[in-house]
Amino acid sequence: MTTTLYVCQTCKAGEVHEDDANRPGARLHAALAAMEAPEGVQVVGVNCLSACSQGAAVALSAPGKWTYVYGRMTLDDAPDILAGAAAYAATPDGLVPWRERVVQFRKQSLARIPPFQMPLEAAE
Amino acid sequence: MTTTLYVCQTCKAGEVHEDDANRPGARLHAALAAMEAPEGVQVVGVNCLSACSQGAAVALSAPGKWTYVYGRMTLDDAPDILAGAAAYAATPDGLVPWRERVVQFRKQSLARIPPFQMPLEAAE
Repeated sequence: MTTTLYVCQTCKAGEVHEDDANRPGARLHAALAAMEAPEGVQVVGVNCLSACSQGAAVALSAPGKWTYVYGRMTLDDAPDILAGAAAYAATPDGLVPWRERVVQFRKQSLARIPPFQMPLEAAE
Repeated sequence: MTTTLYVCQTCKAGEVHEDDANRPGARLHAALAAMEAPEGVQVVGVNCLSACSQGAAVALSAPGKWTYVYGRMTLDDAPDILAGAAAYAATPDGLVPWRERVVQFRKQSLARIPPFQMPLEAAE
C-alpha cells in the first residue's frame, strides 16, 4: 500500500513572496521531490492543506492507516521528513512508536485522523 | 457513504480536570452524541486527535472525500458542528463552498487532507 507524503506548496510560513515558487511550501516541496523517496512513499504537492497559520505543512496518509499532519516544517527538516515517512510506511497502522519518531514529528504535530472504519451499524 | 465526525475526547483546551469525563473534549463529545446526528453522519469519540494545543478538536472524513480538522471548538459550537457535518456529508468530495460553510468551520480550520488517490504509477 502506497504511502503519500503531501507537501503544501502554498504555505507562506509568515514570509512574503511575489513569486509563488519562492514560497516556503513550494521550496520544501521542490527539495523533497528532488531527494530519493523512501520505498513505498510518493511525494505529492498540494494547494493547500489549510494549515496556513502553522506552515509549512506536510501530511502522511495511506489506506487503512492513521493520517498525520505536521506543521512548522523548514527546508532543514527535509531529511527528517523523509525518514519519518519511511518509518510511517513501515508500520501496519501508521502508529510509529514514540521513541522511533523523528524529533520534528514528535514536536510539530498539528493533528492526526483515524483510518476509515466499518460503519458502526455494519459492525454490529 | 458514511461520513464520520470524530470528536477528540481527551482535549483539555487549557483547562485542568482530575475527572477525565469533565474534559472539554469529553463534554463536547457527550453533547454531540446526545443530539440527533444528520443523515449519513456518525459521531465517533476518539483518544486523541493530537491537536492538543488547539483543542477541543473535531474531524470530518468519508471515503473519497477531503478530510477536515477543526480546533478551538466549544460546547456552544455543537449545533454548528452538526450543521457543518451535514453540509459536508451532502458533497461528493467534502468541499463545501465557502459561503455555505458554518462560520466556525471558516475560522477554525487546523488542516485538511486530500482523499486517497490512485498511486501515481498506476495512473500513468
